[in-house]
Amino acid sequence: MANPSLLILPGDGIGPEVMAEVKKIIDWYGDKRELRFDVSEDLVGGAAYDAHGTPLADATMAKAQEVDAVLLGAVGGPKYDKLDFSVKPERGLLRLRKEMDLFSNLRPAQCFDALADFSSLKKEVVAGLDIMIVRELTSGVYFGEPRGIFTEGNERVGINTQRYTESEIARVARSAFELARRRGNKVCSMEKANVMESGILWREVVQKVHDEEYPDVELSHMYADAGAMQLCRWPKQFDVIVTDNLFGDLLSDAAAMLTGSLGMLPSASLGAPMANGRPKALYEPVHGSAPDIAGQGKANPIACILSFAMALRYSFDQGAEADRLEKAVEKVLADGVRTADLMGPEGGKPVSTAEMGNAVVAAL
Amino acid sequence: MANPSLLILPGDGIGPEVMAEVKKIIDWYGDKRELRFDVSEDLVGGAAYDAHGTPLADATMAKAQEVDAVLLGAVGGPKYDKLDFSVKPERGLLRLRKEMDLFSNLRPAQCFDALADFSSLKKEVVAGLDIMIVRELTSGVYFGEPRGIFTEGNERVGINTQRYTESEIARVARSAFELARRRGNKVCSMEKANVMESGILWREVVQKVHDEEYPDVELSHMYADAGAMQLCRWPKQFDVIVTDNLFGDLLSDAAAMLTGSLGMLPSASLGAPMANGRPKALYEPVHGSAPDIAGQGKANPIACILSFAMALRYSFDQGAEADRLEKAVEKVLADGVRTADLMGPEGGKPVSTAEMGNAVVAAL
Ligand SMILES: CC(C)[C@H](C(=O)O)[C@@H](O)C(=O)O
Ligand SMILES: CC(C)[C@H](C(=O)O)[C@@H](O)C(=O)O
Repeated sequence: MANPSLLILPGDGIGPEVMAEVKKIIDWYGDKRELRFDVSEDLVGGAAYDAHGTPLADATMAKAQEVDAVLLGAVGGPKYDKLDFSVKPERGLLRLRKEMDLFSNLRPAQCFDALADFSSLKKEVVAGLDIMIVRELTSGVYFGEPRGIFTEGNERVGINTQRYTESEIARVARSAFELARRRGNKVCSMEKANVMESGILWREVVQKVHDEEYPDVELSHMYADAGAMQLCRWPKQFDVIVTDNLFGDLLSDAAAMLTGSLGMLPSASLGAPMANGRPKALYEPVHGSAPDIAGQGKANPIACILSFAMALRYSFDQGAEADRLEKAVEKVLADGVRTADLMGPEGGKPVSTAEMGNAVVAAL
Repeated sequence: MANPSLLILPGDGIGPEVMAEVKKIIDWYGDKRELRFDVSEDLVGGAAYDAHGTPLADATMAKAQEVDAVLLGAVGGPKYDKLDFSVKPERGLLRLRKEMDLFSNLRPAQCFDALADFSSLKKEVVAGLDIMIVRELTSGVYFGEPRGIFTEGNERVGINTQRYTESEIARVARSAFELARRRGNKVCSMEKANVMESGILWREVVQKVHDEEYPDVELSHMYADAGAMQLCRWPKQFDVIVTDNLFGDLLSDAAAMLTGSLGMLPSASLGAPMANGRPKALYEPVHGSAPDIAGQGKANPIACILSFAMALRYSFDQGAEADRLEKAVEKVLADGVRTADLMGPEGGKPVSTAEMGNAVVAAL
């Protein structure tokens, strides 16, 4: 049988640096566990724009559709701020999500024991925290039409459209319920049904999918503003949160920051199963391209490494190997190995991106 | 000269209870400071629905348009959850905001010294925090058309429209810059210009208003997801935040919760100046109707009392009297008077809603 295929898109800023460490991990799995991947690499975001004048070349898009999984670093940077909207680095990422139809974005917000002191929250509020935010990723206000800047009378108006069909809501709800069954068996759905009709439909469909297909899972509903509050107050009340594209963007970022482990958090974006049974999939760290520290060997590669662990689990059915990698990361942290972003006020000498990658390989 | 007029709308849940305490404060000002108001009272939200079958009667709306300021308690409750969207309690509040054209919603997120331990955040992160979120309140996805649940092919689709004109953005930006000049002179504007065209227009107009009219104020721009993160990480980096209706809903709630002082936070919603020079204005606590504790004398009236302090400042040009009231509240807190929501783990006996109101009157 052919090796599973992996397309690596390092992207911009610290993307290439953190991805270099993931490649060491991939090599380790090939050498030591005979888990070999057919790896190819290409450009996305600003890097693709610089080379091709587009943040995602058609050939890259085609390749992404064919491989078993895509691993992405990060996109964007101040260099591209003045570009036209249509060719901004972000459009490359959004095109991947949309054309691969990656409707379910899994964003774990986990607090690593060794890092509980890092959170701006009190230790007892975050220690042991482990929630999963399932964000709808291919619809809503990110993609709804009409959109644009138009002229009306003597002024301009900026328009975007929030738009959700029943089937779009149902499929991401299913993915949240499935996940919940393998975790704490609890789902909280968030919208603004008190002000938005799209939120009313969202709530109704999530409830229907629950009642008909997942009555065993505990379901609750919360307005997204109350959800933001509750995440800040007592995040441990949640197990799985399911929400739309835009709310998910804000809520998952807030949750990630609350853990104190932002540089540590991976994500998986999953679509429908392909012919080989694997879901279409893209894995990427939650953190961005961090242009301020790019090229200095300061970046923390763990979020990207853990994104590869998610790939092992969700794309390659290698749950045990994913566990192994996650344990290796925990061990390295417990040993006190720290990149600059993880240095506490007590100080000490941070390790470089490469040293952190090497430490994880050694722990494997 | 006639006394300034005040319309009181206690609303639902704990609304009437907390408003009863504000009335004591209003009486005190009449008796002791010869600051008399022409007070009338009416129904809003579920209470109005129960009486009139609508969450805001036309007569009440008309009265709100005429008075110098409206003071609102809270709306909503589980009793009304099954009502049709068009008559839900929230529609009463939204109608007031829209028809009074209250485009600028001021939401201070302040951490009271005596309560810094209450936050889920570490004390050093929140102690002394004092930021102001200026939320656009009459446009965006809350009011944009088309909206509704439609049938397309064989399924339903929920649609809402985010919509901002240049003048809508410019006027709320001005209000943020004006406030900043009286505070820390710093504004951070938040949108998702990387994915939404309405965000691009937002950023452009805010920048233009700044460059042409407020070049002395320090302006920065942040994506709303990064903004949510930064609020959780280090909120003291902000002075004034200006953002749209929906982002403002989530971000201001998160910020309020972070202070640990949710039951303490007031808000002001301001519109254009009326013939008498006063802005159209509605004041309300940030907290909701808290149906779980309604009718038990447990609610904290301070947010509503401080909303009246904002009315003194922004509607009645009584800045010194507003200061006096805010100081009285601080004194009461420093003295250790606590409603149930402010009880720490060390315990003690909480005071009732009425006892807290009396304590503030005594401190005045
Ligand atoms: C880069 C940007 C387009 C993206 C988003 O808004 O979805 C990012 O914030 C994310 O959450 O992955
Ligand atoms: C009650 C509701 C309609 C309202 C809103 O969404 O604006 C509330 O959450 C608020 O923030 O004042």
